[in-house]
Amino acid sequence: MKVNGKEYRSLWFEDGKLLMIDQRKLPFEFSIFEARSVDDVAFAIKDMVVRGAPAIGCAAAYGIVLAEKNEIEVAFTKLANTRPTAHDLFHALEYMRRKIEEGEDPLDAAEKYVEQIIDKCRKIGEYGETLIQDGARILTHCNAGALATVDYGTALSPMRVAKRRGKKIFVYVDETRPRLQGSLTSWELKNEEIEHVVIPDNAAGYFMERGEVDMILVGADRIAMNGDFANKIGTYEKAVLAKENDIPFYVAAPLSTFDRNLGRGEDIVIEERGEDEIRRIRDTEIFPEWVKVKNPAFDVTPARYVTAFITEKGIIKPDEITEKLF
Amino acid sequence: MKVNGKEYRSLWFEDGKLLMIDQRKLPFEFSIFEARSVDDVAFAIKDMVVRGAPAIGCAAAYGIVLAEKNEIEVAFTKLANTRPTAHDLFHALEYMRRKIEEGEDPLDAAEKYVEQIIDKCRKIGEYGETLIQDGARILTHCNAGALATVDYGTALSPMRVAKRRGKKIFVYVDETRPRLQGSLTSWELKNEEIEHVVIPDNAAGYFMERGEVDMILVGADRIAMNGDFANKIGTYEKAVLAKENDIPFYVAAPLSTFDRNLGRGEDIVIEERGEDEIRRIRDTEIFPEWVKVKNPAFDVTPARYVTAFITEKGIIKPDEITEKLF
Repeated sequence: MKVNGKEYRSLWFEDGKLLMIDQRKLPFEFSIFEARSVDDVAFAIKDMVVRGAPAIGCAAAYGIVLAEKNEIEVAFTKLANTRPTAHDLFHALEYMRRKIEEGEDPLDAAEKYVEQIIDKCRKIGEYGETLIQDGARILTHCNAGALATVDYGTALSPMRVAKRRGKKIFVYVDETRPRLQGSLTSWELKNEEIEHVVIPDNAAGYFMERGEVDMILVGADRIAMNGDFANKIGTYEKAVLAKENDIPFYVAAPLSTFDRNLGRGEDIVIEERGEDEIRRIRDTEIFPEWVKVKNPAFDVTPARYVTAFITEKGIIKPDEITEKLF
Repeated sequence: MKVNGKEYRSLWFEDGKLLMIDQRKLPFEFSIFEARSVDDVAFAIKDMVVRGAPAIGCAAAYGIVLAEKNEIEVAFTKLANTRPTAHDLFHALEYMRRKIEEGEDPLDAAEKYVEQIIDKCRKIGEYGETLIQDGARILTHCNAGALATVDYGTALSPMRVAKRRGKKIFVYVDETRPRLQGSLTSWELKNEEIEHVVIPDNAAGYFMERGEVDMILVGADRIAMNGDFANKIGTYEKAVLAKENDIPFYVAAPLSTFDRNLGRGEDIVIEERGEDEIRRIRDTEIFPEWVKVKNPAFDVTPARYVTAFITEKGIIKPDEITEKLF
């Protein structure tokens, strides 16, 4: 991804450290967080220095590299316990365990894992771009960009490709309360010079109903075999509104986000995050202490609202998952 | 309404001044804004010291009282130009014009107008309460409480009555970005000792889909004769989600919110408010200056999503408006 014209990844391994663009400080400040231990990586995942299902997986893979040899089992447990919803986290840890058992060098294995993720995102961009008409007005929720996937992004990857191929596109970016990841998406789109506007989540339906949105493109944190999928809270709302307004709804995700052990979305564990994410924004209190709040971080969108999944193996309908992908 | 156990109205006329609970400072600070001139009242409406369709109407009525005799025409124009969407504003100004032409004292006319509004809200509470089951879990959007209507509220009035009659209820309060009027609703419910929780707007669909919401109860800013209605941005989203999940969706509003000159919702003027409402919360910048934002303050929900309107004349279906109300 471009940052002020220079190529970056959202995280990379260098001189025995895992370096990550600190997503907590964007879009106000571009700074790099250094993780020197498994605990640093676990903190970075929990506190959302790094976020987005594929990027969390990559951070966890590098996290294993940072573990002392005699603490590797502890490292697997610590990293698996950071966040419960994103499937990529468990996928990455299983991959690392397998490779280490096969005698592969952990850093080589992690680098290979990350390169695979990046390559998948590139392919998602190629396939997804074919769905984008010149002049398309696309709505996206949360950040499913390069920040969330090391490079390219999932939902944003087709937009990058469309832009580079000269298609004119316009993006409605949900601000995505409570954590306002829409600001990360806006930051990426600005760096890519893609025209866009940030809107309150409440206004997504308004623009859909007025016929100003041609397609919805989002990422995913975990996808069940029947096509139900978990993603950032509010995704379900946008999916229902898309269907009601006959707007195609696409979910972009690599195969690592599909959970082969999960038949239906009902069984996905939804992470409840802290009240402070709602109460405070950038250290400003927006609700007093006496206000009770609830903060489910994800929701599950049933497969019937999904037009298709955009994967590194092509564009597939929800009922084709087991047949075509696995 | 109760505030720390004492009875209050959201605005009242005293010693030649219009006094208003300053809604910009709630729920952090309870303070009273004094308007001594038409300009003060116009400012208070525009800047949302006072908000909520019926309360805006009442403030405008008192605003006319503050006008010098030779400036009354200017006052009508100034007040009519404060906010374009709420029908009550125009209804109140027409009422004041008629009464003044009939030779009535402006203050008497305004007081009568306000008493009528309060009485209507009381009746809305009586009718609406019959729809609330003991143990009901109710979702509401924005603030359609006593603050928005001088007393009782529209959507909150049935909840107050239910509570006073000993029904146990639980309220999900959408935080209602960008202006977070959910905090006002929370403040009113706390004063009324009604159990509730504030949720991000993105989570409303999540709780509906899980079967944790039994009914939706909202207010309105303008209602067309076919039952389409304008209300705070995001209302349309919640209405679509309610229908999708078979949850009854009720709109509580006095007849002054119905616009007899308006056949369908399409013709309602939607106010676009300033970018700063999205960019900043309590003086903290949450999006940098380079982020483009859009801020439509209202949306229009088509009549087909409305189960019924709760009015001072009873509970009526959207297709009964002209027959039963006018």
